[in-house]
Amino acid sequence: MEALDYHAEERRKAEFDVEEMKIVWAGSRQAYEISDRVARLVASDPVFRKDNRTMLSRKDLFKDTLRKAAHAWKRIIELRLSEEEASKLRFFVDQPVFTDLHWGMFIPAIKGQGNEEQQHKWLPMAYKMQIIGCYAQTELGHGSNVQGLETTATFDPETDEFVIHSPTLTSSKWWPGGLGKVSTHALVYAHLITDGQDHGVHGFIVQLRSLDDHLPLPGITVGDIGMKFGSGAYNSMDNGVLRFDHVRIPRDQMLMGVSQVTREGKFMQSDVPRQLVYGTMVYVRQKIVANASCALSRAVCIATRYSAVRRQFGSHNGGPETQVIDYKTQQSRLFPLLASAYAFRFVGEWLKWLYTDVTRRLEANDFSTLPEVHACTAGLKSVTTSATADAIEECRKLCGGHGYLSSSGLPELFAVYVPACTYEGDNVVLLLQVSRFLMKTVSQLGSGKKPVGTIAYMGRSEHLLQCRCEVERAEDWLKPNVILEAFEARAARMSVTCAKNLNNFPNQEEGFAQLATDLAEAAVAHVQLIIVSKFIEKLHQDIPGKGVKRQLEILFNVYALSLLHKHLGDFVTSGCITPKQGALANEQLRLLYSQVRPNAIALVDAFNYTDHYLGSVLGRYDGNVYPKLYEEAWKDPLNETVVPDGYHDYIRPILKQHIRVARL
Amino acid sequence: MEALDYHAEERRKAEFDVEEMKIVWAGSRQAYEISDRVARLVASDPVFRKDNRTMLSRKDLFKDTLRKAAHAWKRIIELRLSEEEASKLRFFVDQPVFTDLHWGMFIPAIKGQGNEEQQHKWLPMAYKMQIIGCYAQTELGHGSNVQGLETTATFDPETDEFVIHSPTLTSSKWWPGGLGKVSTHALVYAHLITDGQDHGVHGFIVQLRSLDDHLPLPGITVGDIGMKFGSGAYNSMDNGVLRFDHVRIPRDQMLMGVSQVTREGKFMQSDVPRQLVYGTMVYVRQKIVANASCALSRAVCIATRYSAVRRQFGSHNGGPETQVIDYKTQQSRLFPLLASAYAFRFVGEWLKWLYTDVTRRLEANDFSTLPEVHACTAGLKSVTTSATADAIEECRKLCGGHGYLSSSGLPELFAVYVPACTYEGDNVVLLLQVSRFLMKTVSQLGSGKKPVGTIAYMGRSEHLLQCRCEVERAEDWLKPNVILEAFEARAARMSVTCAKNLNNFPNQEEGFAQLATDLAEAAVAHVQLIIVSKFIEKLHQDIPGKGVKRQLEILFNVYALSLLHKHLGDFVTSGCITPKQGALANEQLRLLYSQVRPNAIALVDAFNYTDHYLGSVLGRYDGNVYPKLYEEAWKDPLNETVVPDGYHDYIRPILKQHIRVARL
Repeated sequence: MEALDYHAEERRKAEFDVEEMKIVWAGSRQAYEISDRVARLVASDPVFRKDNRTMLSRKDLFKDTLRKAAHAWKRIIELRLSEEEASKLRFFVDQPVFTDLHWGMFIPAIKGQGNEEQQHKWLPMAYKMQIIGCYAQTELGHGSNVQGLETTATFDPETDEFVIHSPTLTSSKWWPGGLGKVSTHALVYAHLITDGQDHGVHGFIVQLRSLDDHLPLPGITVGDIGMKFGSGAYNSMDNGVLRFDHVRIPRDQMLMGVSQVTREGKFMQSDVPRQLVYGTMVYVRQKIVANASCALSRAVCIATRYSAVRRQFGSHNGGPETQVIDYKTQQSRLFPLLASAYAFRFVGEWLKWLYTDVTRRLEANDFSTLPEVHACTAGLKSVTTSATADAIEECRKLCGGHGYLSSSGLPELFAVYVPACTYEGDNVVLLLQVSRFLMKTVSQLGSGKKPVGTIAYMGRSEHLLQCRCEVERAEDWLKPNVILEAFEARAARMSVTCAKNLNNFPNQEEGFAQLATDLAEAAVAHVQLIIVSKFIEKLHQDIPGKGVKRQLEILFNVYALSLLHKHLGDFVTSGCITPKQGALANEQLRLLYSQVRPNAIALVDAFNYTDHYLGSVLGRYDGNVYPKLYEEAWKDPLNETVVPDGYHDYIRPILKQHIRVARL
Repeated sequence: MEALDYHAEERRKAEFDVEEMKIVWAGSRQAYEISDRVARLVASDPVFRKDNRTMLSRKDLFKDTLRKAAHAWKRIIELRLSEEEASKLRFFVDQPVFTDLHWGMFIPAIKGQGNEEQQHKWLPMAYKMQIIGCYAQTELGHGSNVQGLETTATFDPETDEFVIHSPTLTSSKWWPGGLGKVSTHALVYAHLITDGQDHGVHGFIVQLRSLDDHLPLPGITVGDIGMKFGSGAYNSMDNGVLRFDHVRIPRDQMLMGVSQVTREGKFMQSDVPRQLVYGTMVYVRQKIVANASCALSRAVCIATRYSAVRRQFGSHNGGPETQVIDYKTQQSRLFPLLASAYAFRFVGEWLKWLYTDVTRRLEANDFSTLPEVHACTAGLKSVTTSATADAIEECRKLCGGHGYLSSSGLPELFAVYVPACTYEGDNVVLLLQVSRFLMKTVSQLGSGKKPVGTIAYMGRSEHLLQCRCEVERAEDWLKPNVILEAFEARAARMSVTCAKNLNNFPNQEEGFAQLATDLAEAAVAHVQLIIVSKFIEKLHQDIPGKGVKRQLEILFNVYALSLLHKHLGDFVTSGCITPKQGALANEQLRLLYSQVRPNAIALVDAFNYTDHYLGSVLGRYDGNVYPKLYEEAWKDPLNETVVPDGYHDYIRPILKQHIRVARL
């Protein structure tokens, strides 16, 4: 029997080799194969079922999550999965849980900030999960400003211990995932104090709970911080609160990879340069950018498939109505997001390379690229996560009313994604960091110091400040070099304008404060240019497979021209393009949408997501949406009885009362 | 003992009379007093407690909602509340429930579409809630395109009945609030068929459940459609699914205010003009615009107050850090939303007047203003709800990490608000309706037919197409007339450009399809102009109270200039303003933010929201945020036990296993 596939005709329309595109998306054939295998493994395991997740109470959801984590760990060991496979498996289980922080923050921080002895002692236990760790940095009253943390770690030379203490309510650690109910240990960030002197914030390994009975150790108050956005979503995670009442830990539990405290209580900076810490930051942020493309592509996959199922208006002579994906309004909202998914994927891939490059350089004591790398990863983290959060909600709206149902998968995807805009650097704070780097670059332009990497274009700022876009016809906007120059010119001009305006302020810091909004906009222009240019680099690679490269070219043009339309004010007011050229770009964009249309379903198939991972009735591979929506509805607990609980107490009395309504 | 007020100093800074502003916000002293009284009544009643709402399971939440509805009804009767007071009381209970649809849709539809006899029969029962009704229009497969509905109502002349039937799965009624578990009756919209002929979609009163035992009547399948976005939010409502298997109802249960079917089965259009139906639509949409300003102001109130509590960076010599509300990036995101809340409030007030005006005209058989009124309400519904949905999420982000906690109130506010973008007319579909009206207006410009009301400016299009903005210095942007002309010119030029581009298409409909995105943007420009001009009209009114008018002027300027900045591409490419003038507007905007700053807290105090209604720890009136956040956290069910349920099954075995990790 042939499998049902309502999208079969859509799939036949595709003008490119989908299987090859899957490999492009995955990054390599090997990555594709691992991903494919592990995704199916998870999808076929009943323990990992997640369709009922939004209906569970907090406690049941949490317990279900613990069960999945334990089962995942069991499978990882049974199947002798590699680190990459294990991480993929956790990824496809797709439910925030303490292991995310254990593997993603606790272990990397010990690796990055512990000395050799500490790594030797703690990592084997952590790898075997004989201890479970979390990362306790932010406090109730303190987030982005790490130096503002209030927790203290005071060295007591008499006992050779640190005393970890929360002096105020606002110094309570707040938010760390895995802290609330599970972790046995935490990496606690606190002000190091020796002999009355504050040496700034350092990390300390603190045991929180007994390994025997899981009870909090003396002096430790710990719990969950309560419900968060959405049903399901991050409520599966025990984000926690933690207070210390003079908790003592041995001296060797301060992470001493960078700085040390001696037995005598002397604070010493290690000869290992502090910049090494940036390595971890680059690592975490490139992961976040990679996740942005995952979350975005997932939302886009759902919205695209459902847009081909949903029909509305335009019926002729009683025939079927028009698929909503055929409407230009739908296309102009959806296809730029589809293109963004690919754009973020490619820039994420490049960031992965950048991380290995910077690691190699750091090991060779070459710190020259660090400021540029830092600005670039900070900016990309900010721009991709903000765009993704907005895009998920836009995809939900593109699914009309049904996008509001939990069974569409989109509400939970949104709720679980949005914290990415805040954690690991608030997106606006990050943009301001980028803009400081931009202003510094502009100020050094005359100095002979040549900008490198993603900021190299500033070296050509003389040209970029006066170049004119040569577009005369709509199709001129298809040329990557034309687009690149327009984006370079926009970014350069916005930065230079900001720098000029800054000079009008007698006090630079006051200028930064006053012009912060303009500076953030300049940073966005710079980051969008990076994404555009990395997409172009991708197009220059050898891309096999019938029609695959052609599709990527179309997506590139859609990405760049839709950005140009969205930020038309930037481009025109800075004189990079004329209003007429802006209109031509828009015209070209419309033509491009028509080229995306027949390939849309295949372009989201290329993400190779299982129905389990997508978790969306609207996004089902086979397009069999309505019967499944209907089926899902009846599973709600409210439908367990025909007459609802509460009828006799609260509905019947209303219906049966005899009132004279006086004033109504 | 003096009450704790961390915002006391902020409140002292205010440069205007807050009490007078409360009256401006409420619309009148009387409205203020009613609102204030009812809000306190609800806030002080323990049954209406809602702080635990997001922690309840679906069934418990639903039962809690039934309890509140029953209690609200009891109080309404006991206190002999007027219709206005009763509706306020339901509003402040702030939990979606079946009575919203009973009072907001079922009763108004019978009033608007039933004939006198029907009103006489059904309304008294409905007013006394001896029956409970819902509004069953949308189907699983059909939303915006009402004529595409599949449900049929076939007249059987033998029995003098209609046979209501759902011929397909996709014809199942889907979404109606109150349908799933509560309503005894529904207004069902179905294709009327007499003698094999289809007369289009009409409304029918159908009893769904027995008034004795609440069981569904024969032929009726009814249930809840399952979980929706968020925890709490609309999950308190029984949005439902409904299928008919040849359900028979008496002929007089077709709503016959506009059309009739005679005993012989003859279909007759009444002499009552069909346009009367628009009256209901205008009514519902003006309500939606009023609700937009409520939801938006609520989010803004929370974000503003918390921005004055939260401090970050900028500490000097160990002093306190800077309040985040003092950062320009925070101001430039927050204050335009604050200004929008006021702008939407005033345009909503005006819409209320417009509704009474159009009702009066319809009664006098004057249909001349209907197309303009329809376009105006459709457009305002679209623009204000989209902006509000985005703004709530922006306010959440403005609260940093803590905005992600349910106790911030913002996640639930977002989840409960977003459907407004889809229901009662999808926002994009509505914009396209507006643009059709705009194109028609442009095409008739030469005909001597003078545009009226909100589209009157098109009558001056000759001037608007060639006028030049005269701004030379930043302060020139403070003049309402300068702003108004810029907005008029932008709207007129965008419409005229669209009309010209449409003419390039041999087929008008094809042109509409291809240019839909541009048309929607032109519609937005038109609607924003309406909001701007109604704000100006408000400023021309007599506004008592020290400094009140001055604050409104500042807010008006912030609203208009921030829109101008956001849509700079429109203004500049259409030649309405120069890039230089755009930069001056931006400069002025910065100065305006500094003027809003000292008044920010007082400006949100003027909304006069109780802490109960706000439902946000971050937005508390007294600013005592951190201790209360801490307190709230411990209430989570997960904190009922120190060691979590699941520890013995799923955590301990991991910690205690003895594995040799091979490949990891």
